[in-house]
Amino acid sequence: MKKIYAGLIGFGNIGTGVVRLLDMNRGLIEDRLGASIVLKKIADIDIETPRDAAVDKSILTADAADILKDPEISIVIELVGGYQPALSFMLEAIKAKKHVVTANKALLATYGDEVFRAAEREDVDIGFEASVGGTIPVIKALKECLVANRIKSVLGIMNGTSNYILTKMSDEGQAFAEVLKEAQRLGFAEADPTFDIEGIDTAHKLAIVLSLSYGKKVEIDSICREGISGIAQKDIEFAKELGYKIKLLAIARERGEEVEARIHPTMIPFNHLLANVNGNFNAFHFVGDASDSVFLYGQGSGMMPTASAVVSDLIDIARNILKGISRRVPARARSEETIEDIRLMPMEEIVTKYYFRFSAVDRPGVLSNISGVLGANDISIAAVIQKGRRLDGAVPIVMTTHESREKNVRKALKEIDRLDVVRDKTVLIRIEDENGQ
Amino acid sequence: MKKIYAGLIGFGNIGTGVVRLLDMNRGLIEDRLGASIVLKKIADIDIETPRDAAVDKSILTADAADILKDPEISIVIELVGGYQPALSFMLEAIKAKKHVVTANKALLATYGDEVFRAAEREDVDIGFEASVGGTIPVIKALKECLVANRIKSVLGIMNGTSNYILTKMSDEGQAFAEVLKEAQRLGFAEADPTFDIEGIDTAHKLAIVLSLSYGKKVEIDSICREGISGIAQKDIEFAKELGYKIKLLAIARERGEEVEARIHPTMIPFNHLLANVNGNFNAFHFVGDASDSVFLYGQGSGMMPTASAVVSDLIDIARNILKGISRRVPARARSEETIEDIRLMPMEEIVTKYYFRFSAVDRPGVLSNISGVLGANDISIAAVIQKGRRLDGAVPIVMTTHESREKNVRKALKEIDRLDVVRDKTVLIRIEDENGQ
Repeated sequence: MKKIYAGLIGFGNIGTGVVRLLDMNRGLIEDRLGASIVLKKIADIDIETPRDAAVDKSILTADAADILKDPEISIVIELVGGYQPALSFMLEAIKAKKHVVTANKALLATYGDEVFRAAEREDVDIGFEASVGGTIPVIKALKECLVANRIKSVLGIMNGTSNYILTKMSDEGQAFAEVLKEAQRLGFAEADPTFDIEGIDTAHKLAIVLSLSYGKKVEIDSICREGISGIAQKDIEFAKELGYKIKLLAIARERGEEVEARIHPTMIPFNHLLANVNGNFNAFHFVGDASDSVFLYGQGSGMMPTASAVVSDLIDIARNILKGISRRVPARARSEETIEDIRLMPMEEIVTKYYFRFSAVDRPGVLSNISGVLGANDISIAAVIQKGRRLDGAVPIVMTTHESREKNVRKALKEIDRLDVVRDKTVLIRIEDENGQ
Repeated sequence: MKKIYAGLIGFGNIGTGVVRLLDMNRGLIEDRLGASIVLKKIADIDIETPRDAAVDKSILTADAADILKDPEISIVIELVGGYQPALSFMLEAIKAKKHVVTANKALLATYGDEVFRAAEREDVDIGFEASVGGTIPVIKALKECLVANRIKSVLGIMNGTSNYILTKMSDEGQAFAEVLKEAQRLGFAEADPTFDIEGIDTAHKLAIVLSLSYGKKVEIDSICREGISGIAQKDIEFAKELGYKIKLLAIARERGEEVEARIHPTMIPFNHLLANVNGNFNAFHFVGDASDSVFLYGQGSGMMPTASAVVSDLIDIARNILKGISRRVPARARSEETIEDIRLMPMEEIVTKYYFRFSAVDRPGVLSNISGVLGANDISIAAVIQKGRRLDGAVPIVMTTHESREKNVRKALKEIDRLDVVRDKTVLIRIEDENGQ
């Protein structure tokens, strides 16, 4: 049986999963591929600590160059993570005409353009299914399955940690800080959780999705981004009362020549599929102009689910190698030179629905004051909840709006927060209730 | 720009969608493919009736041979439907070394083996993404995305018509016959709805999924199949009370050397993603041994969603043609000779949970009679609802069970239905509450 040689750089959690999966399903993979994938070398700075995978010690090396310079190795699996030395390894592999499989979203979101151009120049494949949504076939869906569609919109829960926290807050009524602490104890959240809870990890994934759906690249920092650390239990309760769940969504939409892209806590109706994505699962809701809604759901992280995506990329590239070809589907599903820049719509121009929680002094005329400012700013109210119950000495007044422009909302809230009768900064959460259309 | 010529046989609803989609997104498809797909000829027995698509009359022909014998045409799109002449067209196309794209589930479920072997012999590709789940990338998920996984289980809502009917019955409290009549009026159900409501269409799709997941082929008639025409409104109500929805599910599971496969109305918990698949949508829940749960959802039918899948297959094959290759991924994702027969587990050996609705005379001792028979047959009761309300003169007694063997259940129900105190045939609905594992 023909052998295809691969080298793994980065023998951490996912790397261990890849070794285990190639071993566990060896026969099945050989049957399906008609060839054998041989992991010839594994490089890691730590080759001493035992891993939970059967590995012949002789293939371990502390020097990535042993893989990058091995002419027999045709596929390099980069699972180092971070920007450097991962980027150097990747570019060196490409230069040596080796195909690359990676799960490195941060790197691709930031340096993808450079990597993809180099791959085109050297005529090699880059597999990055594992970089977005773990085991969920998001990349293949966009590059192949929905290839005949203009993507009208994307709504996604792209970070398992923040979804786990929001699910716990919603199901068990605990405060954000409490749930975070527990998640850290259980290993579901990092010691420094900023990347996950502030939407940075989500932004990396959204940037990759955008570059496959709408064009070249976006600067991560140009995407409007709000995390979940400001979500209070009372907003989760009011959301329930209004028929919504709060999820950290990444949202992208075609808006004429521009693209709307944003990441923030979002209220979605109970019966929306995304509202039923719980715990650390991820999900993606695409709307294509022909396909209509396509919803994909699965484990966005974890050793074996992510390894499943890495190995599917390995097999995809191996199938090319066996046919003597490469770049049957280019890294971004089209020739690099035809990819246009993305024109992001300024956040101020976004039109959506809003939830506001005002913290007001319980005095006659307050409601009229607030609604007056909203009306003057062309914001029309859909629902109001005012129950007179006191929270921290002030009365919460909750309102939802019809479609309004972000610019007007920001201006109105600035005015409202300056009113004498308003105690604290108004809480704003955006609403999506059109089932992603 | 390089041109790839295709011919379409069957200019019905989906065929019209394909013509429209190729036209509507021509520029985008050319950018992504780096070539142009030209629909050179369209064959249909009716070339007079105008379609809702812009077509140059000169490419229409009433003779499929004009396509099958055209040496310039490299891809034949078969959208005739049914067994013959579709099968002959397909085999003739293959013999002429043309690739085939089809949405014909009935044909592939029945003659797939013959078609796939012919395709291997002639070294051509068969695209059939549109045959299962319309726009949902089920075929690619199994052949490529989950390729490194053993598929532990599949749960699917594979027929839009029956899901539409069950959704209406559940949401609006109408009886089956009423909803069916309305669905027929609205064009959501055929004049003869047997294929859809009796699970035959679902069986065709399940057979294709089985052949990609577990081996060669299954005889459609060897799959245990129950339709939805016997579902009564009262069972939907009791299901709600117990926290379940009723869906027509196709179920497949690896059971050692055997495979469990069945199609029947099934109770699933409210919070299962499949319970939230409403109207005429389809959905598939796969569990792979590495990937864990992967859930895919979308339009299982309809002109443009199905066309989206057909055109993605066209582009997939065109990408091969441009690289000068074929069968990079064989029709069943492996060489035909390595595909083994599927050993279906006899339905009597299935172990699952059950819902029973007994129709009993309201008399002391009835519950003890019934539960006595169940106990004697090794069936242990999980929950009982007996409210003493009379339905048609008898009292409904509802029970759910722990895991029990089908054989024992059938034997017990036969005994129970012979009891003096039992009025009508007991209603049996199987339960899935393990989230597909």
